[in-house]
Amino acid sequence: MRDVAIIGVGMVQFGRRDEDTLLDMLAKASLRALDDAGMGDRGVDAVYVGNMAAGMFQHQSSIASSLVDRLSLLPAAADTVENGPASGGSAIKNGLLAVASGYYDYVLVAGGEKMREVTGWRATDVVATMSHPQVEYPYGITLPGMAGMFTRLYMEKYGVTREMLVTVAIKNQAMGGLNPYAHVEMAIDKEGIYTSPHAVVNNPIGADPLHLYDMCPVSDGAAAVLLCPLELAKKFPQPPIHIAGFGQATDTHALQEREDPTDLKAVTLASQQAYEMAKLKPSDINVAELHDAFTILEIANSEHVGFFKKGEGGKAALAGKTRLGGPMPINVSGGLKARGHPVGATGVAQAVDLVWQLRHALPKERQVKDAQNGLAINFGGFGNNVTALILRRVQQ
Amino acid sequence: MRDVAIIGVGMVQFGRRDEDTLLDMLAKASLRALDDAGMGDRGVDAVYVGNMAAGMFQHQSSIASSLVDRLSLLPAAADTVENGPASGGSAIKNGLLAVASGYYDYVLVAGGEKMREVTGWRATDVVATMSHPQVEYPYGITLPGMAGMFTRLYMEKYGVTREMLVTVAIKNQAMGGLNPYAHVEMAIDKEGIYTSPHAVVNNPIGADPLHLYDMCPVSDGAAAVLLCPLELAKKFPQPPIHIAGFGQATDTHALQEREDPTDLKAVTLASQQAYEMAKLKPSDINVAELHDAFTILEIANSEHVGFFKKGEGGKAALAGKTRLGGPMPINVSGGLKARGHPVGATGVAQAVDLVWQLRHALPKERQVKDAQNGLAINFGGFGNNVTALILRRVQQ
Repeated sequence: MRDVAIIGVGMVQFGRRDEDTLLDMLAKASLRALDDAGMGDRGVDAVYVGNMAAGMFQHQSSIASSLVDRLSLLPAAADTVENGPASGGSAIKNGLLAVASGYYDYVLVAGGEKMREVTGWRATDVVATMSHPQVEYPYGITLPGMAGMFTRLYMEKYGVTREMLVTVAIKNQAMGGLNPYAHVEMAIDKEGIYTSPHAVVNNPIGADPLHLYDMCPVSDGAAAVLLCPLELAKKFPQPPIHIAGFGQATDTHALQEREDPTDLKAVTLASQQAYEMAKLKPSDINVAELHDAFTILEIANSEHVGFFKKGEGGKAALAGKTRLGGPMPINVSGGLKARGHPVGATGVAQAVDLVWQLRHALPKERQVKDAQNGLAINFGGFGNNVTALILRRVQQ
Repeated sequence: MRDVAIIGVGMVQFGRRDEDTLLDMLAKASLRALDDAGMGDRGVDAVYVGNMAAGMFQHQSSIASSLVDRLSLLPAAADTVENGPASGGSAIKNGLLAVASGYYDYVLVAGGEKMREVTGWRATDVVATMSHPQVEYPYGITLPGMAGMFTRLYMEKYGVTREMLVTVAIKNQAMGGLNPYAHVEMAIDKEGIYTSPHAVVNNPIGADPLHLYDMCPVSDGAAAVLLCPLELAKKFPQPPIHIAGFGQATDTHALQEREDPTDLKAVTLASQQAYEMAKLKPSDINVAELHDAFTILEIANSEHVGFFKKGEGGKAALAGKTRLGGPMPINVSGGLKARGHPVGATGVAQAVDLVWQLRHALPKERQVKDAQNGLAINFGGFGNNVTALILRRVQQ
């Protein structure tokens, strides 16, 4: 396997982007990645697009073919990759393996989703199409519904408290306020979110015990990364970031079939595969983007990837260990919670944010000092198809 | 790049399969491929599913995650790959590169589509979502409409006649009648299709100058292949078939932007890439599956892959050169025209039929004698994203 590097990254601000089509967003993010790498008129060999549901949101297919034409990258090969909200992680994997195999040298991986094209409940329904088609979807379960039940079990089993969840929400929205690409730029405090007399209005229950501010917004957005063999990466202007590790694992489609529904086996397995490939251990990671579609998932993921023991993730968050400046900064970008979660874009956006961290290119208030290794967890289904990506700053 | 082989194949009969869900078909075809390879309880490392539009046809996403669970292949990685009607070809590509890279050893690639779940005009609409979202789809163009215009241009420029098209239809339906997996089992003759007094009823114009029998049916179906490194393939019971060549190329999304719309540049480029990788030339190919969604495409593809000079493909068909027993047998399976065209399944089904040919496993009336090399063309969009696959019988 050839070593593969990321030599260019780009993103558009997540949020409600009525002015853009899905293709507009994918093209803007991709052009930024190509420009960032200094590609000029040099073409690419292949394009991968991570997208979950353009068929349902836009009544449109063959998005990757559209993008390659739109960017004048013809005759580059083009494929769309779908793995629910981990479509971005899966698209990066296929770009990685295509370059690693030696078949392609320059591969653009873009992820994007335009979810605000439909009204709120319809977006929730489209996302729910990833649930089990016989035993979950027909009974009206949604992802927030699953997350609510998961949170309750986690609270009962591990003593996670409402205060721990709120701490994650406050941390991530505060960081979103510093991130020019974030959907949610409004910092919130414990007073407003938790104890104010207007709490019921400002932060109503969404899926008990999860409140509105425990959930990511429904967003439009796109992000892109450009890959090439590590040995060619040094010719390009940006410090190359090595894709040191990748892992992916599946778990039972239906949540009810898991022996212990609080055990996110696919997260554990995917991260173990990535650590093994990178020859790193959890304590070697300096910055992480963990799929926090719900606040509980940041806590649970931080345990399943080995940062904290089971039951210790919430306490670590409460103690400030996962803040910027703490020993294990998580979702410094604001995470899905504040950057937003245009499903197909998220896995690619996580990689973009880690690349900026590992280049040491961010303003001081967002930069993890001297970050060398970053980990991203992109969570498909309700943890039934998870990707883990480890990026490493290349020593010059 | 490691050499990769196909060690197991499976398919369900294409047609109208009301009794099966999409997942049922994918699971049946996959189990046949796993059984064919003698995999027993040995798991696989990853699963790829080629599917164009489960979101629109079934309101369902994350099909690959569903399949891996359904087949008890957890925790294998799982991704869905979409490239319109070339989704199957793209899924095989990503399985191929994943094994070639050394990251995975055993990869199952399944392709499937359930199109008869919606009524006829809606299926045509869903397929049309692959056309250009600004300059084609909103104006009501469909794939049969594009094919009609393409046929007219081809007739004018190269002298293709109605008789040549009919010859292709008769040949492929006759072969479909011999193929137990084919949707259309009814042989037709020139009398019935072309000159009978009931011709208008039996074979009405669909998209002038194309008649009903110039077009593939709308089908349900699934097919699967199992890949592993060639060096491991010899341990398995079936004669291994080497994936000797692969190519993929894109062309302008909008047909109107092509300098010469009769020039299928992506077919030429994709097949050239595949020949180069396989170190073969067109005359080395003994059997071909060429994407004949419309009869004109079999003729045009046979020229663009280099079997015949431009303008000679129709004459070759008329002269019987592309029949079983002729010098260049094309679509001995019945092709899309008769086997059927469940869009996401087609590229994988082409590979399955070629594998059977190269194993010399078919009954005499369908077997190309002593076939050594096979070529498949899977055509996405209207030729704007094309895959080419070359399979080779391994000398024992």
